Amino acid sequence: MQDTQVAGALATTAAELDAQDELAFLRRRFHLPDEEVYCESTCLGPLPVNVPQEMARTVAQEWGRGLLSSWWEAGWWDAPRRVGDKVGRLVGAAPGRTVVGDSTTVQLFNALVAAARLRPERRTLLAPTTQFTTVRYITDSVARLLGLRVRRVAPAELSAALGAEGDDVAVLVHEAVDFRTGEAHDLAGLTRAAHAAGVVCLWDLSHGAGVLPVGLDVHDVDFAVGCTYKYLCGGPGAPAFLYVNARHQDAVDQPLPGWTGHAEPFAMRDVYHPAEGIDRGRIGTPSILSMIALEHALDAYEGVTIEQIGARGRSLTGFFLTCADELLTPQGVGVATPREPQSRAGHMAVRHPDAEDIIGRLRKRGVYADRRPPDLMRFGLHPLFCTHREVLRVVTEITEVIA
Amino acid sequence: MQDTQVAGALATTAAELDAQDELAFLRRRFHLPDEEVYCESTCLGPLPVNVPQEMARTVAQEWGRGLLSSWWEAGWWDAPRRVGDKVGRLVGAAPGRTVVGDSTTVQLFNALVAAARLRPERRTLLAPTTQFTTVRYITDSVARLLGLRVRRVAPAELSAALGAEGDDVAVLVHEAVDFRTGEAHDLAGLTRAAHAAGVVCLWDLSHGAGVLPVGLDVHDVDFAVGCTYKYLCGGPGAPAFLYVNARHQDAVDQPLPGWTGHAEPFAMRDVYHPAEGIDRGRIGTPSILSMIALEHALDAYEGVTIEQIGARGRSLTGFFLTCADELLTPQGVGVATPREPQSRAGHMAVRHPDAEDIIGRLRKRGVYADRRPPDLMRFGLHPLFCTHREVLRVVTEITEVIA
Repeated sequence: MQDTQVAGALATTAAELDAQDELAFLRRRFHLPDEEVYCESTCLGPLPVNVPQEMARTVAQEWGRGLLSSWWEAGWWDAPRRVGDKVGRLVGAAPGRTVVGDSTTVQLFNALVAAARLRPERRTLLAPTTQFTTVRYITDSVARLLGLRVRRVAPAELSAALGAEGDDVAVLVHEAVDFRTGEAHDLAGLTRAAHAAGVVCLWDLSHGAGVLPVGLDVHDVDFAVGCTYKYLCGGPGAPAFLYVNARHQDAVDQPLPGWTGHAEPFAMRDVYHPAEGIDRGRIGTPSILSMIALEHALDAYEGVTIEQIGARGRSLTGFFLTCADELLTPQGVGVATPREPQSRAGHMAVRHPDAEDIIGRLRKRGVYADRRPPDLMRFGLHPLFCTHREVLRVVTEITEVIA
Repeated sequence: MQDTQVAGALATTAAELDAQDELAFLRRRFHLPDEEVYCESTCLGPLPVNVPQEMARTVAQEWGRGLLSSWWEAGWWDAPRRVGDKVGRLVGAAPGRTVVGDSTTVQLFNALVAAARLRPERRTLLAPTTQFTTVRYITDSVARLLGLRVRRVAPAELSAALGAEGDDVAVLVHEAVDFRTGEAHDLAGLTRAAHAAGVVCLWDLSHGAGVLPVGLDVHDVDFAVGCTYKYLCGGPGAPAFLYVNARHQDAVDQPLPGWTGHAEPFAMRDVYHPAEGIDRGRIGTPSILSMIALEHALDAYEGVTIEQIGARGRSLTGFFLTCADELLTPQGVGVATPREPQSRAGHMAVRHPDAEDIIGRLRKRGVYADRRPPDLMRFGLHPLFCTHREVLRVVTEITEVIA
């Protein structure tokens, strides 16, 4: 086909897919730039429309007038658990298994020490070589504090490593979605392989939460943490979440025993006695303003299931692949994200040696995306608001910029 | 004197002190209840008047429109350090020595491990028996992780303990102000005694920051942390701060090495190389909404020095003592806070076996205060807005409720 015919066919497909889209109404739940395409939910989700008024109310009424009583009367005290359950629904967790607070870094540290303490006789933390930087630093730090060693193997070799050396592995710490390529790893299979070797799993869901049905309960995941300011749109630096499998909750022995996780937080006891259930995952006093923003941001997910969202996401990433096959492959530009639907999550990654320059030029054309050194461009296709027409525009603009 | 004469004399004194008060204008910087007396800044400072509009702007403009670019263009990235310097001015720290982020619990943990690592050959963490619960739990947790022992002695015996057993003490961890009695401890003297024994000091300023001139630089304090949602009025669960003495900054080896404290945070290095200076005290992605609220809340301190604020606070607490001597002592009710001006900080504590009931009755009369089990009532006299007339009203209401 001629280029114009290809473009026309893709435009027709995009329009058809958008017309058939039963979730198109969700886009109205966000403040989005008028003429621009926002593909940076990999870093910061956009503002849900109901957040400004809820934040104004929280500041003026709850803090300004309710003052200290708002810890009870406005529900601040229960927020970590209440918002946790709201996140939990999107990661396949029953109520009472997820709590919100602190940064992902802190939650990772706390959960990794707690996980390792469940296997005190084992001396290894196992991780993929592709670990995200913060996860890597925290893994190294925990190993040092607990006198463990860190073993990193290629993601494809993890199952084999669990089989061969699993006896000495305390924890497998792994990201559900690769922050570079956008590959969704086999959370279910790796968790099974880990459990077969008696290994505890800690999954970092940061690049999957809100787009990927991860099914934490169904896959019997031990621990999971994740950030909420990417696809979950909780706002800049929104608090992270911690999931703890019900069967571990009363055995969790955490290194950050803050007063809010105490069994009797207001009794001012001299010795730390952790609360029962997920409440012991609470650490210090939570950042209420950031947490309330997240709580109302999550209303953008109301009325839809994570399976519906995941399906819409696969439609967007699949159409990205279709467009890339037609427009980018002829230019010799490769897509780094796997083709299989079950291996795709929220973002599509494209490799090019001039990634930095291309991202800058795209921005001038109204396509907002980011990059990861050395050569990756990331396009976050948020399934709550991105459209197939936007996907085509993104790929077309990449093609034009590279040409 | 007759009771009515006493009351009249105290009312005259209160009116005179308020009339002479050169800082009375600061009260207008806060949203305060009209008819009620707010003495709960020990738990949650009130809302500064400029915060609502700044929060609205941050949410709608910076997040909603600026999106990811606001990390740079709206100054989010530099906020931990910029807000840190703003707190630093109030605790006697030169710029570049204070950073804001995370909860006090997390900062305590991070700082205590870092402090102990400066003295690897020593095996003891020294603390007063009066430790606040979270500080206590974190001290115990750090000792366990690092294989240290915790030695707790009465506050009055700490100097002697440092002299006799200081050789084995790695860190003295201490609160600047006792959360129960409101006693301001001898930060300068204890820091000197600790240094004479080669001990590193970590001060928790939670109940002192914003009311007490602690002079961290001048007294050569090693590490300090503190919360910002009490007197500093940063909002519910506002992020904590960390101070690191300039001479330690490049030796700090922290257990929570988050990506934002990396020397090259966006280079995604495999190994953690800490940033120089106070930036290495940064951990994970900061909760921007909570941090920006704090930043603008601190404007309430603009144009006044912490020494002026401290003097006004001593006038309020001193007048509380005067009123208590006249009105509470005859009822057999004791004040738990020391009488010496240099030993008083932001709140006055009163002992009574019926504390819980009295606090409830005071609330119905419009006096908001809190209590600490078993028998203490705490009256936070915020030097930015409390008046001497309010102090008299508080003591009078206590008297009436008890009678």
